[in-house]
Amino acid sequence: MTRILTYGTFDTFHYGHMEFLRRAHNLGDWLAVGVSTDKFNNIKGKQTFLPYETRIQILSGVKYVDLTFPETSWEQKRDDIIKYNIDIFVIGDDWRGKFDNLGDLCRVIYLPRTPDISTTQIKNILSFNR
Amino acid sequence: MTRILTYGTFDTFHYGHMEFLRRAHNLGDWLAVGVSTDKFNNIKGKQTFLPYETRIQILSGVKYVDLTFPETSWEQKRDDIIKYNIDIFVIGDDWRGKFDNLGDLCRVIYLPRTPDISTTQIKNILSFNR
Repeated sequence: MTRILTYGTFDTFHYGHMEFLRRAHNLGDWLAVGVSTDKFNNIKGKQTFLPYETRIQILSGVKYVDLTFPETSWEQKRDDIIKYNIDIFVIGDDWRGKFDNLGDLCRVIYLPRTPDISTTQIKNILSFNR
Repeated sequence: MTRILTYGTFDTFHYGHMEFLRRAHNLGDWLAVGVSTDKFNNIKGKQTFLPYETRIQILSGVKYVDLTFPETSWEQKRDDIIKYNIDIFVIGDDWRGKFDNLGDLCRVIYLPRTPDISTTQIKNILSFNR
């Protein structure tokens, strides 16, 4: 069994997230997703539209996601890879090169983002409608 | 087993669709989704961003969807309800009252649309980015 790991915030879930998760899962057999907590997003200076619990609930509706767990720091990745016995770390190619240092523990794959739709744009719509 | 049926186009899948499908499935145990074909959308004067095959592929990633089938006409609903032995027909409350006539075959439930985000708005973003 090939075990995959990714991280993200997955705010206001959309088509681009679904496509990313499908392609990530299809790299292997089992996909774990570290989801940034609200507190960690605060540290990153990122304000989400939906709280952590709602973001987790939405992700739990995605067939390709086998496990979610909280992402609370930048540093936890190495521990997570060992803990979950990960074969492939995958992330969007907007991060290309940024996680090459994990290559001693597992394969590192950067997936192109497609389609070209971002959470920021969805958030702008939702804020406008609120 | 309580069997649920809904219809839709589910273009450029988003958070609102996921929430709707979750609540629809939670009315029972099994959810069938009639997905409007491109030809049927043409009849309705509706142009989708994504073709039928892609829309079906995205829906197949949603845990709450047990079956998809093509919706090709307005008239097929009564036949589908009988064919799939449906207990509850569910649709967004923007259609309130429009399908009361199915009430002799099964329960008819109109679910409020939440959150307030529409496919049209997502399509506008995608067209802009293209």
